[in-house]
Amino acid sequence: MKEYLKISLLPKDTNMHGTIFGGVIMSYLDLAGAICARDRFDNLFVTIVVREMRFLHPVYVGDLLSFRGEVIDQGTTSVTVKIEVDAERIDSREVFRVTDAEIVYVAVDRERGKTPLIARGHDQPDGAPRRKGQ
Amino acid sequence: MKEYLKISLLPKDTNMHGTIFGGVIMSYLDLAGAICARDRFDNLFVTIVVREMRFLHPVYVGDLLSFRGEVIDQGTTSVTVKIEVDAERIDSREVFRVTDAEIVYVAVDRERGKTPLIARGHDQPDGAPRRKGQ
Amino acid sequence: MKEYLKISLLPKDTNMHGTIFGGVIMSYLDLAGAICARDRFDNLFVTIVVREMRFLHPVYVGDLLSFRGEVIDQGTTSVTVKIEVDAERIDSREVFRVTDAEIVYVAVDRERGKTPLIARGHDQPDGAPRRKGQ
Amino acid sequence: MKEYLKISLLPKDTNMHGTIFGGVIMSYLDLAGAICARDRFDNLFVTIVVREMRFLHPVYVGDLLSFRGEVIDQGTTSVTVKIEVDAERIDSREVFRVTDAEIVYVAVDRERGKTPLIARGHDQPDGAPRRKGQ
Amino acid sequence: MKEYLKISLLPKDTNMHGTIFGGVIMSYLDLAGAICARDRFDNLFVTIVVREMRFLHPVYVGDLLSFRGEVIDQGTTSVTVKIEVDAERIDSREVFRVTDAEIVYVAVDRERGKTPLIARGHDQPDGAPRRKGQ
Amino acid sequence: MKEYLKISLLPKDTNMHGTIFGGVIMSYLDLAGAICARDRFDNLFVTIVVREMRFLHPVYVGDLLSFRGEVIDQGTTSVTVKIEVDAERIDSREVFRVTDAEIVYVAVDRERGKTPLIARGHDQPDGAPRRKGQ
Repeated sequence: MKEYLKISLLPKDTNMHGTIFGGVIMSYLDLAGAICARDRFDNLFVTIVVREMRFLHPVYVGDLLSFRGEVIDQGTTSVTVKIEVDAERIDSREVFRVTDAEIVYVAVDRERGKTPLIARGHDQPDGAPRRKGQ
Repeated sequence: MKEYLKISLLPKDTNMHGTIFGGVIMSYLDLAGAICARDRFDNLFVTIVVREMRFLHPVYVGDLLSFRGEVIDQGTTSVTVKIEVDAERIDSREVFRVTDAEIVYVAVDRERGKTPLIARGHDQPDGAPRRKGQ
Repeated sequence: MKEYLKISLLPKDTNMHGTIFGGVIMSYLDLAGAICARDRFDNLFVTIVVREMRFLHPVYVGDLLSFRGEVIDQGTTSVTVKIEVDAERIDSREVFRVTDAEIVYVAVDRERGKTPLIARGHDQPDGAPRRKGQ
Repeated sequence: MKEYLKISLLPKDTNMHGTIFGGVIMSYLDLAGAICARDRFDNLFVTIVVREMRFLHPVYVGDLLSFRGEVIDQGTTSVTVKIEVDAERIDSREVFRVTDAEIVYVAVDRERGKTPLIARGHDQPDGAPRRKGQ
Repeated sequence: MKEYLKISLLPKDTNMHGTIFGGVIMSYLDLAGAICARDRFDNLFVTIVVREMRFLHPVYVGDLLSFRGEVIDQGTTSVTVKIEVDAERIDSREVFRVTDAEIVYVAVDRERGKTPLIARGHDQPDGAPRRKGQ
Repeated sequence: MKEYLKISLLPKDTNMHGTIFGGVIMSYLDLAGAICARDRFDNLFVTIVVREMRFLHPVYVGDLLSFRGEVIDQGTTSVTVKIEVDAERIDSREVFRVTDAEIVYVAVDRERGKTPLIARGHDQPDGAPRRKGQ
């Protein structure tokens, strides 16, 4: 698994209990999954399905959230990503599993029509990010 | 089903495609479910499980989102809510199903320990909202 | 009166007193009024006048705000909407009137020129929202 | 009149028309009025009434908004402030009146009870801001 | 020096310590500098360098921040602005220096290419803002 | 160098040019530096100095920003962190250096008094994050 997002949370992200609002975590989870999909394919993606998410521990202001993921399935036009979310508590340094989810993304063209997946780097030797100037 | 949230979306809610960011919709869905749970029980709730969400149509700036729901199951300390999200397009007035989800909330006390469900209005004749001054 | 917005408020919406910032309530009031105007007319609207608002009670994090309204006057290019804002306290369930206001909207074309009001559903039998697929 | 707030607006402040959302302007107007009230009195204030606001011109991203005001009336526990909002267009440099409003604030104690106005600087020779170290 | 921004801060601007997040102050500082540059030149500007910022005092919710500045250097396509940030404490009225910074902006055309500085008001007698209707 | 934050940017983060607002990048840079400092020390930190930042390329909506850093100096109560910010363009996959900065943080106690640095893991064999349940 590779880390796709890593964030620290602020008071503006809290709910009425003073803990981090679940919707904020789901938002980053959705972003992380799309970045993971794009790490493997040269497509634009939209979210089609978010499979069951189980929230195991609350997240607090100052916790450091890590979103790691991998592609676990692919079809002709869709890709399924698994994302695991861990939090490191700011005080105790303990690391918790917050949630995980499988998310299905569909590759779309500019008019949002379904379009076949294009493996990343299909037009270059190694598919790796290029430094400007190289 | 009863409507628990009704919102209109702004440019600050968009993703890189210019459509409404899925995380924003999930955030309101989570809020709506908690309000639905509280409509039946006098507890504080935290989100434990969000069952599969399937996103059927994109949402655009200006669309009016309606979150309707009902309690579909309850245990000793948890309650399962079904929320349906519809959008009304600002231009065509067409109404779409955007997504729906089943969400499980657990009743917690101030220290976030599980606590039994308390039916709303257990201490009053009708459980209805009271107008101040009545 | 019909309900046009229904929202729950978060810590990010508070002012320096820890209560909900009045500007946040005014923002939703303006949105709710525009949605009410569009419920009757097939126009784009811009806000021209917000009549006196009197704030009767503070709003707290977790309160559920309901914005109900109706069209109370109309001219050739403008429409006046009355919006009433009620809050339901999360703990006591008491319902309060927070404020109300009359707002005047003007129908505009894409270049923001004044344009005559067009009754909604002028081009269809009943003016009701259409479900996609119907 | 004295300037109490001066701000520049960003894309996150826009509405569905792409212009600045009226609720954002009302929010700053409310803040500016409270700062104006505090410029004359050593009290905490809550907003009680916002008198009629008339929106004369749209505001665009990049426009520079200036909120100037003065106290125009005072009672035993309340103060009425007049705020004028001007925008300077980023391209043409033209300056427009956007809106103005009279806002009534009530002085409150920590429990939000009404409390008498206390003239600022009642406990010092000149009431002026003090530089730290002076 | 002239005041280019004046703002009051809200709970949504805080960090995990409950004080105002430094990034929020840097954001306004960057905006204020660009407004200062535009006060002298009829160009679009992008930020190229932010010179050392030293944060002298924490800022709290409710503090009133003032950003004053002046152009201290100019080249063919770039301009250097000095911005000083002061806070007035809401309770004590004490005024503190929060930070200051020198920021270099480069004049760019619509394609972000460097372009020569154009003195403001080069096409009019006095360069002053014009009131609409004058 | 180790990666401390990794984020993807949304339309709400843009400035009037439609590119990512520099203040947003500075905010994450400040957060990333504090997380880096806490990776080595068991203290609370406040930002004291942000050394010169040079912005080399604009950042666009959808770009993936990576903040990597390391501690480059430490005193009795302060620590200096170097943070490098790279962006990966969403379309071209090119990786750019956006900016870098040296930031000085001071260790503070709960009353914001300076306090000596405490090496992380001083009370445990390896200083590594602990999994709950281990």
